[in-house]
Amino acid sequence: MKPIYNFSAGPAVLPQEVLQQARDEMLDWHGSGMSVMEMSHRGKEFMSIAEKTESDLRELVGIPKNYRVLFLQGGASSQFAMVPMNLLRGKTQADYIHTGQWSAKAIEEASRYCTVNVAASSESDRFTSVPPQHQWRLDPQAAYVHYTTNETIGGVEFHWIPEMDPDSAIPLVADMSSNILSRPMDVTRFGLIYAGAQKNLGPAGLTLVIVREDLLGNALPFTPTLFDYRIHAQNDSMYNTPPTYAMYITGLVFEWLKRQGGLVAVEKNNVAKAQILYDLLDKTDFYHCPVARQDRSRMNVPFTLRNPQLDDAFLKQAQVSGLMQLKGHRSVGGMRASIYNAMPLEGVAKLAAFMEEFASQHA
Amino acid sequence: MKPIYNFSAGPAVLPQEVLQQARDEMLDWHGSGMSVMEMSHRGKEFMSIAEKTESDLRELVGIPKNYRVLFLQGGASSQFAMVPMNLLRGKTQADYIHTGQWSAKAIEEASRYCTVNVAASSESDRFTSVPPQHQWRLDPQAAYVHYTTNETIGGVEFHWIPEMDPDSAIPLVADMSSNILSRPMDVTRFGLIYAGAQKNLGPAGLTLVIVREDLLGNALPFTPTLFDYRIHAQNDSMYNTPPTYAMYITGLVFEWLKRQGGLVAVEKNNVAKAQILYDLLDKTDFYHCPVARQDRSRMNVPFTLRNPQLDDAFLKQAQVSGLMQLKGHRSVGGMRASIYNAMPLEGVAKLAAFMEEFASQHA
Repeated sequence: MKPIYNFSAGPAVLPQEVLQQARDEMLDWHGSGMSVMEMSHRGKEFMSIAEKTESDLRELVGIPKNYRVLFLQGGASSQFAMVPMNLLRGKTQADYIHTGQWSAKAIEEASRYCTVNVAASSESDRFTSVPPQHQWRLDPQAAYVHYTTNETIGGVEFHWIPEMDPDSAIPLVADMSSNILSRPMDVTRFGLIYAGAQKNLGPAGLTLVIVREDLLGNALPFTPTLFDYRIHAQNDSMYNTPPTYAMYITGLVFEWLKRQGGLVAVEKNNVAKAQILYDLLDKTDFYHCPVARQDRSRMNVPFTLRNPQLDDAFLKQAQVSGLMQLKGHRSVGGMRASIYNAMPLEGVAKLAAFMEEFASQHA
Repeated sequence: MKPIYNFSAGPAVLPQEVLQQARDEMLDWHGSGMSVMEMSHRGKEFMSIAEKTESDLRELVGIPKNYRVLFLQGGASSQFAMVPMNLLRGKTQADYIHTGQWSAKAIEEASRYCTVNVAASSESDRFTSVPPQHQWRLDPQAAYVHYTTNETIGGVEFHWIPEMDPDSAIPLVADMSSNILSRPMDVTRFGLIYAGAQKNLGPAGLTLVIVREDLLGNALPFTPTLFDYRIHAQNDSMYNTPPTYAMYITGLVFEWLKRQGGLVAVEKNNVAKAQILYDLLDKTDFYHCPVARQDRSRMNVPFTLRNPQLDDAFLKQAQVSGLMQLKGHRSVGGMRASIYNAMPLEGVAKLAAFMEEFASQHA
């Protein structure tokens, strides 16, 4: 096997141990004679997988009992509609924080169901920072406040959780698709958290939702049954057949995270990985990172070469060195190294060494 | 590995060759150094998988150019809402054929978006047949006619395609979740076909839609973006991240179907498999199949023991013999043998031999 490091923004690298276990269990899960893909979702074998997957997540994060964990389909893009459809609760407006392309998509879809108040935006600095909370103009009539904890394309991350007025009872909603489980988090600060799986959790096709129970049961009348969180909560995510194999792989990722020492250890590793790249970017004029220091993402590190004519050579030589998928999103250009939980420190170190060498060759 | 035969109604047995290939490619697809799960859906590796998956399906079925093939999420249950949301096209009513529990669910969800005319029902014989077309009372104002080609729970299958008045231009819509690709089909007879993957196609979490192009572009105003077929068609099922690994496995199943000799050969095998079980059921008084002979499903064979006190012993001994998941759906009781494409003839023969032996032991 060709040894490579895969810096794709998602679907993204998975832990080798997880893939090895999936390979070894492909034809026969735990002596059942079946692949997990072949199991009835209501059979005892898969039920045990589903239960362990949820309980491992609850343990990793520390999810309180009054929060439901839902394993859904449709990606974060479906959540962009499900959130307003379920959380407006008789209100007609919601607050959104605009920090880049993913929050923009959430805003666009929500605008079809309610009046969106963009309570803060970093558009004026081209989304290279997150707006500090003192600039936010929250609407006291908002049904909820939505923000994107990490902008995968811009490489901008919230390293703090917004403070909500405890008297207002307005829930905070977070799209955590690209940084969930990259650090410990206090679930009680949120009304609802959602994340597509294909960055930090597992395979594409699974969407995780963590929602406070009292927010369920208020879907708009025209909400499709499958878009009603309550239906999924009442049926333990088995109202219809869930994406069983994706849940199994995600469960293996949760077990792997526990073996790493849990989210405190994972965060430490993620800080170390990001530090290697940002230190390099800051000490050279050859590369440039556009993001404000205090808001730089630990998951997605965007950078440009000062001389963009070298972009193609950079990508080609990186690929020859086994450093894959470094091309930046087409909308922003340049490079992007996505270094989710499953990217080993060695991969980041190898990338940094390559970048230094490339810079010295072309200085 | 324990040799078993898995008669689960879905998720269901997959071809061993497919699982073996998936195992062998798990850590390194075609020398890429990546698992398919780790590939960007927009990278050249996965794009080649997606393109081959679609072109193999088009070849297997013979799908005309004016039909789009969509690879979606959400299961058939999401389609129950997506069909009316997209196909009403200014009309307010639709015809549905009621043949059991799955068509009932489609009717229930559609009733939230339009007036449903139940144009025919086999409720009077407890859904043990399909209503012949001369009994159908189609509404000339209907936006479409919906039926379920195979009722997974009742074991009732349409062995004919309804004739539509060519002048009416009313499209025929079919839920083919549990018998798609089990025989050749003439796509031009349909406006839209949908199927959850987890019975005859691949892993749960993927939903196949085949839709005639002229029906796109009329979604109701409140339709979530991800529920609008046009959005998916315009973006070749990549508006958002598709369930990439499930698509890959389904692609392997399509290759396997081609190696079997295509749908004509597959149908022949399915007829032979079903015949073994129905012949046995008809020649004995020990077992009973409630379904009218002409409407019996080739995919799901429900049967009861005349003496239900023997049910537990039957299931236990079957399991000891490696014949798994034979318990009938909780709503109808008894037994059900699901014998989709991937169930080998030997599995059915082994089940029949077991049933004969069990009957002779307990006669």
